[in-house]
Amino acid sequence: MAKPQIAIIGTGLIGTSIGLVLTSRADRSYDVIGIDRSGSRAKTAKKRGALDRTVGSLEEAVRGTGIVILAVPVRAARRLMQDMVPYLDEGAIVMDTCSTKHEIMQWAAELLPPTAHFVGTHPMAGKEASGPEAADAGLFRGAPWAIMPSPRADESAVRVVHGLIEQAGATPLYVDPAEHDTYVAAVSHMLILISVGLFRTVRDSAAWEDASLLAGPGFRDLTRLASGDPTMATDIIATNRDAILHWLGRFRDEIGMVMKAVEVGDETVYDLLAKTQLDREVFLDQPRERRRKEGPEVPGASDAMAAFFMGGALYEKMKELQRAQPAAGDAKEIRRKLGMDGNGDR
Amino acid sequence: MAKPQIAIIGTGLIGTSIGLVLTSRADRSYDVIGIDRSGSRAKTAKKRGALDRTVGSLEEAVRGTGIVILAVPVRAARRLMQDMVPYLDEGAIVMDTCSTKHEIMQWAAELLPPTAHFVGTHPMAGKEASGPEAADAGLFRGAPWAIMPSPRADESAVRVVHGLIEQAGATPLYVDPAEHDTYVAAVSHMLILISVGLFRTVRDSAAWEDASLLAGPGFRDLTRLASGDPTMATDIIATNRDAILHWLGRFRDEIGMVMKAVEVGDETVYDLLAKTQLDREVFLDQPRERRRKEGPEVPGASDAMAAFFMGGALYEKMKELQRAQPAAGDAKEIRRKLGMDGNGDR
Repeated sequence: MAKPQIAIIGTGLIGTSIGLVLTSRADRSYDVIGIDRSGSRAKTAKKRGALDRTVGSLEEAVRGTGIVILAVPVRAARRLMQDMVPYLDEGAIVMDTCSTKHEIMQWAAELLPPTAHFVGTHPMAGKEASGPEAADAGLFRGAPWAIMPSPRADESAVRVVHGLIEQAGATPLYVDPAEHDTYVAAVSHMLILISVGLFRTVRDSAAWEDASLLAGPGFRDLTRLASGDPTMATDIIATNRDAILHWLGRFRDEIGMVMKAVEVGDETVYDLLAKTQLDREVFLDQPRERRRKEGPEVPGASDAMAAFFMGGALYEKMKELQRAQPAAGDAKEIRRKLGMDGNGDR
Repeated sequence: MAKPQIAIIGTGLIGTSIGLVLTSRADRSYDVIGIDRSGSRAKTAKKRGALDRTVGSLEEAVRGTGIVILAVPVRAARRLMQDMVPYLDEGAIVMDTCSTKHEIMQWAAELLPPTAHFVGTHPMAGKEASGPEAADAGLFRGAPWAIMPSPRADESAVRVVHGLIEQAGATPLYVDPAEHDTYVAAVSHMLILISVGLFRTVRDSAAWEDASLLAGPGFRDLTRLASGDPTMATDIIATNRDAILHWLGRFRDEIGMVMKAVEVGDETVYDLLAKTQLDREVFLDQPRERRRKEGPEVPGASDAMAAFFMGGALYEKMKELQRAQPAAGDAKEIRRKLGMDGNGDR
């Protein structure tokens, strides 16, 4: 019997970093395979140790695979979901890591077969460099990682994805897809365009040649997001345009307010800065552990992932059962048979 | 004869980091002393190894000291220059590390005695955390460090400061004070207020509680400067208001342009993002070594600092000579006597 396998489709920074998390367990009994539209990126991911092997086609990646991870720009994920349908195993888990979630959840419902367990996710992680060279098993440590199970994802699928997130050292946050997109427009997507706007303001001025010599870590940090993959960012903007424009408009107004404070004088400026310093300190000090929203129905998720990691026994058994009952459907029944209800050992 | 000594006034992040650079040379033959308006910050700096000893008064810090380093908010530097006059040794070097330079160069000319060698500087370095706890000898490595000698600073004083900057691993950049302030408004000062504006936009919205849970490293990086010391930032803004408002206005307009691009559609957005990604790559790839402006009259500056570091012999001899000629003035004559003209060993 072949080892259970996990496929990573798209071996950029995120996909390869997930691969490194998955292959870092010494006691694992699954294979991690991968594919990228750029063969050399997939090769680099393998060389980095994020993949056991690369495969040459979507069919090879998806056939017989227990977990398919889509780590590609959001509109590429749509095409891939369409294309993978003929090869997808019954009961397979499909998860994505795209930055906008409202549309992809709809696409998954429309395109994937009802037997697939789709779980949308979005790790709030990244760094200046991109591509598999920059990947790091520690990339997700301490980061929030949004998770939104589709109605068709059963509890064990959610547990497995939840466990993978915890394995990466991140904090799973259950959130509604539409809400996710609105919030993330504010704390992430809008920031790409602020970085771009800041960089262009200085770059397009006559002072650039001299001013750029004096640019230190502040300028570098605040323009970092302007170096992201333009395809990825264009996809994000196309699938979350209204929310991004809403927040950018508010931000532009806020800059006007800040300018007024500077015009008014020292005391107003000091008050604004001191209040903001304090508010940000409170924000940073608040441990995410305490702030996190628990998924109400995923007790012992890391146990589930551990079980999968330790031997894949649970998963294998479950797949067997699902194959024995092609109509599947009643996940509750399966869980009952597996003794998965309640909190005890499974 | 007492060891030559260097005094650091203000042992925050920058002052303490400079102290760590200065004390890290095993072969040094000078003492580093320090003082802070907060006694506990000075104590921390000493505990970190940045100071050989703390002193209790400005008089103790300045009397008999060869180099006085002012690492305080810019308007505090003005008061300190006024107060240190009675204690300042003839021929002492005074340098500062403040973020705005036009006014401080004027204050130095007005307040300091003509025998003091004032060299204005501004290291373009920083990080999220502040205070002596966050100090690091590597803080300046690879960073630009603006240097602007006053007309009264003689060549050897400039060499010593230039050498200190190189010792810290930074790149000295000679620039006019007024130009410095304009450029730095664009690449640094304005960014504080952009960080503040971004943080407030999200913090003051009804979505904050939920959105903040999803905030990842991007939000953290882009709002980092909002956590800076409010006194320091208020001083910066007060002494560079016009340039900062000018740049903020341009930035706000640019955000409007970016919003228009988003409204127009994917292709426009992609072009903007791809062009900016490329421009920023060019900016990052250009090694500062090649871009740097050389101070035309400071050959062998690191040799001068090395001589000072190695035994302080040059500095001691120079001070002796200056004391023998109270009118001092003719630095050229002193340099001739010391055999300091040309490029050879001194």
